[in-house]
Amino acid sequence: MTTRILDGRLLSAEIRAEIRKDVEQFTKNTGYPPGLATLLVGDNPASHTYVANKIKSCKDVGVASFHYPLPASASQSTLKELIERLNRDPNVHAILLQLPLPGGLDSTPLLNAIDPWKDADGLHPVNLGSLFEYKNWREMIESGQPLSCTPHGVIQMLRRSNIQMAGRHAVVLGRSKLVGKPMAMMLLALDATVTICHSRTQDLPAACREADILVAAIGQPRFVKPSMVKEGAVVVDVGMNRAPEGGLCGDVDFEAVKLKTSAITPVPGGIGPMTVAMLLHNTLQLAKKQAA
Amino acid sequence: MTTRILDGRLLSAEIRAEIRKDVEQFTKNTGYPPGLATLLVGDNPASHTYVANKIKSCKDVGVASFHYPLPASASQSTLKELIERLNRDPNVHAILLQLPLPGGLDSTPLLNAIDPWKDADGLHPVNLGSLFEYKNWREMIESGQPLSCTPHGVIQMLRRSNIQMAGRHAVVLGRSKLVGKPMAMMLLALDATVTICHSRTQDLPAACREADILVAAIGQPRFVKPSMVKEGAVVVDVGMNRAPEGGLCGDVDFEAVKLKTSAITPVPGGIGPMTVAMLLHNTLQLAKKQAA
Repeated sequence: MTTRILDGRLLSAEIRAEIRKDVEQFTKNTGYPPGLATLLVGDNPASHTYVANKIKSCKDVGVASFHYPLPASASQSTLKELIERLNRDPNVHAILLQLPLPGGLDSTPLLNAIDPWKDADGLHPVNLGSLFEYKNWREMIESGQPLSCTPHGVIQMLRRSNIQMAGRHAVVLGRSKLVGKPMAMMLLALDATVTICHSRTQDLPAACREADILVAAIGQPRFVKPSMVKEGAVVVDVGMNRAPEGGLCGDVDFEAVKLKTSAITPVPGGIGPMTVAMLLHNTLQLAKKQAA
Repeated sequence: MTTRILDGRLLSAEIRAEIRKDVEQFTKNTGYPPGLATLLVGDNPASHTYVANKIKSCKDVGVASFHYPLPASASQSTLKELIERLNRDPNVHAILLQLPLPGGLDSTPLLNAIDPWKDADGLHPVNLGSLFEYKNWREMIESGQPLSCTPHGVIQMLRRSNIQMAGRHAVVLGRSKLVGKPMAMMLLALDATVTICHSRTQDLPAACREADILVAAIGQPRFVKPSMVKEGAVVVDVGMNRAPEGGLCGDVDFEAVKLKTSAITPVPGGIGPMTVAMLLHNTLQLAKKQAA
């Protein structure tokens, strides 16, 4: 079977071009650009790479970025005060706290301290909770509410690749707050039948083989093998892991699995760039809401 | 196969006896009882019955109830002002807005106006969103956060009937904000593999037959037939519909389906009384939080 490789770099460049045009218009209308604040605590090299990439993407589309690097020794209260200050800063329309935080810091109260209308990542409980509300995708997207970037990136990838979700069986492998659970809510809004599997699932391979669309988000290098994939399935790989031989790899054994799929996302160059594009999308949407 | 009939009246009486003891202790410690405000708009006879039943149950366990019946002509702003007043009322620890509201009123902004820490039904976005946070049931229940009453009633029914959820496949039929979606989050917290099915699911009978535990919450009288149930499954019926021949019935064709199940809940006398018990539980928990 010949599979389609869903190219996240290409697609995200298209989306960023749309956003760039919109940002230009916004800046012309208001006299100021949308602004994103990035908070990066400690020395995690992967986090540094991600944030640098996000800042570069901001620049590329005309979004102002305000970068706050903090030492790993930064206290919970320092971070909280900084967030509260940024909540009040009229130049900052969206705030991103890069995760994971160094040991000793608790991310939940900090994410909850971000103004829900400046929540770049859509991880505030109010924004997650609102995912329960919407009856369909149109309502969800038109709410202007920030949607969790990675699952939203997956949805945009599938929609723009003309992959039907309505009525099909989507299996989400992983139940995290960041990906698995909001992913399930978005797929439901698009009328997919959704199963959430995880480490405690009995006979995980059989559960995954039921998937028309399989979204892997468990953070285990090359965990998904051909035996876990139905012939002709669409496989989306959200993972970003250190490969045993060095370099990066996803949650899917790409070279082996792609022989069975009708479409598959690579790592890198799949969902990663889509996630960044959705962050820019959220920043612009939040700036529009605040200007309205 | 002999099935167990899971008796919600019996079980809820046990839970209410536990709550009554706790309420007595609370009242002794603080000098005042936990208080629940009930808002009932219009003349829907089912809603009147439900609310009367809730008020009676409050009295039974020593919870003070404050009842606000309003005409169907009540405006959105009247309701919003009443909710805001009750948010400030120190005698009221929990506020219940009985749904559905009469035509012309929009429930979402009113539910969102309830102080999340007075949210008797656990339907405020902050409380729904927090369901994404918890890694397991213990964290969820110990948060003291109000959990959506009907799905919480289902969980208590299953747990107190010693029905294992971890590793088993739970299928939730229905994707509402009130039941289906929070139900899925709670089952996940208990390590079940969870599938959410709905009206757009292809081959719904086959999807339901995969269930070790099937939770029906679609609001269609006797929709679940034996052909949709695996031999030996546990079937939980959340429905409460007008039966074609008069009287009430659930979403499950009880008499026919029970021949295939290992355990099943009846309607009435199943999840209904459990829901009311969980409302009392939430009221007490919220009163404790506010007293702390």
